[in-house]
Amino acid sequence: MGAAVLVFETDKLLPALREACEAVERRNAINVLHNVLIEADGEGVTLTTSDLDIMVRRAVPLESSNGAARFTVNALRLLAVVGAFQSGSQTAIEFDAGAAVVKSGRARTRFAVIPADDFPVIANSEATASFAVRGLALNQAFGAVRHAISTEETRYYLNGIFLHVRDGTLRFAATDGYRLAQLVTPLPDGAAEVPDCIIPTKTVDIMRKAAEVRGDAPIEIAVSAGKIVFDVEGFTLTSKLIDGTFPQYEQTIPSDIKVQAIVDRDAAVQASGRVLVATSDKVRAALLRFAPETLSFTVRSADHGDAVDEAGCDFDAKQPFEIGFNLRFLRDALQALDVDTVRFGMTDAAGPTLLTSNPPGALSLVLMPMRA
Amino acid sequence: MGAAVLVFETDKLLPALREACEAVERRNAINVLHNVLIEADGEGVTLTTSDLDIMVRRAVPLESSNGAARFTVNALRLLAVVGAFQSGSQTAIEFDAGAAVVKSGRARTRFAVIPADDFPVIANSEATASFAVRGLALNQAFGAVRHAISTEETRYYLNGIFLHVRDGTLRFAATDGYRLAQLVTPLPDGAAEVPDCIIPTKTVDIMRKAAEVRGDAPIEIAVSAGKIVFDVEGFTLTSKLIDGTFPQYEQTIPSDIKVQAIVDRDAAVQASGRVLVATSDKVRAALLRFAPETLSFTVRSADHGDAVDEAGCDFDAKQPFEIGFNLRFLRDALQALDVDTVRFGMTDAAGPTLLTSNPPGALSLVLMPMRA
Repeated sequence: MGAAVLVFETDKLLPALREACEAVERRNAINVLHNVLIEADGEGVTLTTSDLDIMVRRAVPLESSNGAARFTVNALRLLAVVGAFQSGSQTAIEFDAGAAVVKSGRARTRFAVIPADDFPVIANSEATASFAVRGLALNQAFGAVRHAISTEETRYYLNGIFLHVRDGTLRFAATDGYRLAQLVTPLPDGAAEVPDCIIPTKTVDIMRKAAEVRGDAPIEIAVSAGKIVFDVEGFTLTSKLIDGTFPQYEQTIPSDIKVQAIVDRDAAVQASGRVLVATSDKVRAALLRFAPETLSFTVRSADHGDAVDEAGCDFDAKQPFEIGFNLRFLRDALQALDVDTVRFGMTDAAGPTLLTSNPPGALSLVLMPMRA
Repeated sequence: MGAAVLVFETDKLLPALREACEAVERRNAINVLHNVLIEADGEGVTLTTSDLDIMVRRAVPLESSNGAARFTVNALRLLAVVGAFQSGSQTAIEFDAGAAVVKSGRARTRFAVIPADDFPVIANSEATASFAVRGLALNQAFGAVRHAISTEETRYYLNGIFLHVRDGTLRFAATDGYRLAQLVTPLPDGAAEVPDCIIPTKTVDIMRKAAEVRGDAPIEIAVSAGKIVFDVEGFTLTSKLIDGTFPQYEQTIPSDIKVQAIVDRDAAVQASGRVLVATSDKVRAALLRFAPETLSFTVRSADHGDAVDEAGCDFDAKQPFEIGFNLRFLRDALQALDVDTVRFGMTDAAGPTLLTSNPPGALSLVLMPMRA
């Protein structure tokens, strides 16, 4: 048998490869995980990549081929090579007896091959529950709580988004101990039996990109023991779930609000941004002072000097109220609340603050105060 | 006496600050060199920055002021703060008794101040020769040879562009020992007495940016003992020259060309770029093979496999000719030659190669071969 020749439109192969490469870790001691598994069955090609915890499969249409083939080549190198080919051209991959050659126009690049059978495919399991969410909705849901995920590896059970069903709603939550984000959404058909899941950050980020470009397309989500599978338009992401228990976070959301202020969100984002750039050293706390017309942001810097800025504010208390926050966490929260006006609900200067839209909507953000 | 208040249009202050900050080194043990000297005389303001070798002065118009003032504040912090102000706004700088406050809209940021007299201004010297070059022409001249400057600090006399007068022409040259670039330009009025100068890389890069945005404006260039001053539209760059002797480089330019090829430049840039991206490891040599119709570029990679690409070529020799080059150096040279067709002039596979436009023009580029 001669060489297998797979011919693609470069403009279709390239975005597929780019999506597949999202799963590839540059630093990985296992050689075959640098590679993409290419499987052709004569009708189409499937690209598969993995880091052992996450597996991405992506279908690509073929222009032509002369039979079946299965092999693996370095994924990022293939992406770089195909990325340099001209738009509108064809890309041919020839595979024969342990080597692959990638051609387009006058270019031809030889790739070392690792056998397909060495590639560790993550097996399917039977789903416990399955439901569908539209692309943009999933991207928005993940995006609303993503900023609060912990990056501390010792608290591995916080290194993802907690997906769970409560009181007939589907909820997304994340926390790093200093802040918390919770989004409550209507329960999709079929989701009632979804078990508690902690979805790893990398899975969240890959799915956000994949969901964003697919807009209104329904993403099929299947949860099985220890695994979650997302499936949309020839793109399949299989991810292990984080094996741990997410904390009972609901009690952190303050319900006994004593002081309340309504703030113009864009003005607050801009004002807090200006005091942030004024602090070239490590100072990261901002003092917020709520007064009847004005919310002021003050950042104190020992090396330089104070920076102060203001945003408009509705605030009815007789006394001004002062509270300090981590300025970056505050900005993350303001940006996650994609609304015109934000409600700050405070208990006291030492307790958690609840940020919501005004009136409160599906997204609740909690910030712990800090000295400023 | 009360505070001095300097009021600027933010949109005029910001680009001036950005240009002034080009001279500021983030890592500098001398504190005042992190600062910009602000001098107001009631009519306008001059911003001055320095790293002791280079001094930038930039005039900024004032909207209003209430008198004279001289002080210094952290340059990059001021740039960050003003950069966050709204376009179309005004920026006020208030200076009073050892502190400065920068205001725009509702924002106010306090800056620590170092006295103006602590700022080390580089003194003027009497010019030996002075002449003018238009902005775009200077940017192009520096840009044509810039890539060949050495970054090896031990060979400090190669860390810049060699400006010199020879045979009634003004010449720009740079070399790192592996490649050489020489541009021959008509002698401007007043330049006949210009002494040999080695202009430091940082000066070259700052002037390229300043020249580019000023297009057709004439840049006044004055050379004195050990110094060069560039002056254009309120922007003045004073730079020490490199105190060393540039090598006698002319003999490196081969005159006994034995083999010659004419190559489509854009095709060569693209083909060499594609073989470059195919090498994800440290392999950096490309083998060029000149044949009657085709110039092929081959990169060999032990870890992966060969990458080959081709460009069109006019080549008359009976035998194909093979020579290896550093692929990045070759690409730098092709990109510096901003022409449709490039002439490769070779002596033999072990000798220097001369790249020029076809027919040869003002720019000569020499590449030493390497094993590929």
